[in-house]
Amino acid sequence: MRKRELEAVVVYGDSTLGNPDLTYVVGGTVVRGGVFFKRVGEEPVLIVGGPDIATAQAYNRVKKVCTYTEFGLEKLVMQYGHGKAFPHFLAKILKENGVNGNVTLSGRNDISTGLDLASHLSQLGYKVVGENSPTLIEFLRETKGPDELEEMRRVARKTGKVVDSILDILRDLKCKRGHLAVGGKPATIGLVKKLISEKLLAEGLREPEGTIFAQGSSAIPVHNMGIPGQRLKEGKLIIFDIFPQAESSYWCDMTRSFVLGRADAKTKRIYEAVYAAQTETSDYLHAGVTCEEAMNKACDVVERHGYRTVRDVYSGKAEEVPSGLTHTLGHGVGLTIGERPHLTFGNNESLKEMNVVTVEPGIYIPTYGGARIEDTVAITPKGTENLTKVEKNVELT
Amino acid sequence: MRKRELEAVVVYGDSTLGNPDLTYVVGGTVVRGGVFFKRVGEEPVLIVGGPDIATAQAYNRVKKVCTYTEFGLEKLVMQYGHGKAFPHFLAKILKENGVNGNVTLSGRNDISTGLDLASHLSQLGYKVVGENSPTLIEFLRETKGPDELEEMRRVARKTGKVVDSILDILRDLKCKRGHLAVGGKPATIGLVKKLISEKLLAEGLREPEGTIFAQGSSAIPVHNMGIPGQRLKEGKLIIFDIFPQAESSYWCDMTRSFVLGRADAKTKRIYEAVYAAQTETSDYLHAGVTCEEAMNKACDVVERHGYRTVRDVYSGKAEEVPSGLTHTLGHGVGLTIGERPHLTFGNNESLKEMNVVTVEPGIYIPTYGGARIEDTVAITPKGTENLTKVEKNVELT
Repeated sequence: MRKRELEAVVVYGDSTLGNPDLTYVVGGTVVRGGVFFKRVGEEPVLIVGGPDIATAQAYNRVKKVCTYTEFGLEKLVMQYGHGKAFPHFLAKILKENGVNGNVTLSGRNDISTGLDLASHLSQLGYKVVGENSPTLIEFLRETKGPDELEEMRRVARKTGKVVDSILDILRDLKCKRGHLAVGGKPATIGLVKKLISEKLLAEGLREPEGTIFAQGSSAIPVHNMGIPGQRLKEGKLIIFDIFPQAESSYWCDMTRSFVLGRADAKTKRIYEAVYAAQTETSDYLHAGVTCEEAMNKACDVVERHGYRTVRDVYSGKAEEVPSGLTHTLGHGVGLTIGERPHLTFGNNESLKEMNVVTVEPGIYIPTYGGARIEDTVAITPKGTENLTKVEKNVELT
Repeated sequence: MRKRELEAVVVYGDSTLGNPDLTYVVGGTVVRGGVFFKRVGEEPVLIVGGPDIATAQAYNRVKKVCTYTEFGLEKLVMQYGHGKAFPHFLAKILKENGVNGNVTLSGRNDISTGLDLASHLSQLGYKVVGENSPTLIEFLRETKGPDELEEMRRVARKTGKVVDSILDILRDLKCKRGHLAVGGKPATIGLVKKLISEKLLAEGLREPEGTIFAQGSSAIPVHNMGIPGQRLKEGKLIIFDIFPQAESSYWCDMTRSFVLGRADAKTKRIYEAVYAAQTETSDYLHAGVTCEEAMNKACDVVERHGYRTVRDVYSGKAEEVPSGLTHTLGHGVGLTIGERPHLTFGNNESLKEMNVVTVEPGIYIPTYGGARIEDTVAITPKGTENLTKVEKNVELT
């Protein structure tokens, strides 16, 4: 905080859900959110509604937890009205703590009301400053602590278990009247996704953004989720991208691509290029490598295999690339499924120990299909630790 | 927009998850979010990453969907760097659309970077203005359209189905060696919650903020989720508060309180007061009633039954109320589980047709237990429509 010339940080929100900064400082889920306040050199305080007090205290991340009532919110509501009390409430917290220097407001909230809040606080004499990314809290979040890494290992292990069990089911598909079937029912993408959901639930994981299980050309564009009614076919490339979240709010992100049965030569060629890009780039990562260098490495491998990459767009050589590696290499994972550091062009930041990032090159051929392989990888003192242990094979036999 | 003297609205975010304003304007989930832009009197445009283009187009809420690449994001990234390109990207959109009047920035994003973004845009010559709540998008979201109401009816129906099936299971509990059991296993809160999760999944609902199933004194404070290892006991008050979200991103919120078997006189007295407050306040609601009037109505009923209410705190009569109705009456529901309008003191806004709100009084006696009854209710031209159809009985027999 001193380096940033901040005297105080306020992190707030009406829920910890979708509010990773608030989740981070609180240590878990608080249904109706709250206000976290920290003055430089002093212990932080967390202020929540009465209904949430026991939950917030139990996390024990912040020792001093109190209620809105203790800070007199109800009186301010009656004085200024329900919709106008919040700036006065924050001002009261700042005043009681003797803050007169720079203050940042963090936490995901509507920007429009945030600007209004900042201007109210300015009128009341406080100096609210913005931060270019990384904000203080983003900076703290992008290198994981040992407990966070351990939790992410656990989430990755459980995710791997779900993927392994689905791959086993797919291996055992029976052919029935010319169609693949599972448990006597036609093996559709919808059915596979239902099995995935059930297995995730059994492992205590949820899928707030769904799961991608897409076959053939329907896997392009890259975030297409798959067509529920489509039947599984032998020999067609499938992209299985799973990104569940644990109750702790930490995420995992991994992708496997494969065909049921035998792959033809074109599919094998695509897969081998993706496999080479994924493994060679993973081996290349360590603390000190810049995000752009990592991205370039993946493009080098993909281009060496004869496919185009999005580098052509960033370099101005092309307006777009219709096929090949059409997206960036990866991104940080933690309390969100996409955060700093971003492994892409124009990003000269270096990877740091205890970053956790995805390494996920893919190659996509419109009207044919695509393959992507993705692991979640921690940057360690020795190089990297791959949190994703699931096998990589183009043919599921 | 004209009334608010806005020339343009920008709604943005790196995900639609936890970003209800962005979800609203997009019409559904877009994994990596995007930028929604609308100039007054003109058709809106939605700009997303290439991987998300097909999903965004399929929702069809915004007719014109394009990619970051079409707006030259990659070139700006190489020119200004990955972390600094976004203000220039937004400026480019504003410039190409000839905007020179007031612009609001909506969507849930980190406030600190939002302030930084606004100041960058100001430096580039644009007038970014804040809004006191309700923002334009909040204003649109707080009255539901017919399609939204129909979806919320559906979610409430499915939620009710899950609750009904759990109540049936609880009715059928067998006593085994002096303990209640379900399917041969000890009937613990953890086991009931597992059944709830499975039934929600089967109905296509998820529980991003969990479910409250709490017995006796452990139901206080109000947002305590329940102790997984605790065994169910006959005659103890249970609060079952369920608030699932559908794939459409719409939520439902409902609560039932009951005892297994017979209730004693103290429990019956608490329950009757809560039941009276819930039903009488629901009957009292219609368009034109203010949020504060609704809150007062609930307090009137609860106090008439001899319990204290949080009105004493708002009126300055007490610093806090240790028991009785200790929280506010309810809140809007829609793309979030807690939004405008807020049925509480200091809020003189009137309810409007097509608001959807919870009506959820409760009475809590520390070291004993509590009861809360909650329905999700739509304000209609005729008065109200109760979306929650589940029975209300203190004894589950």
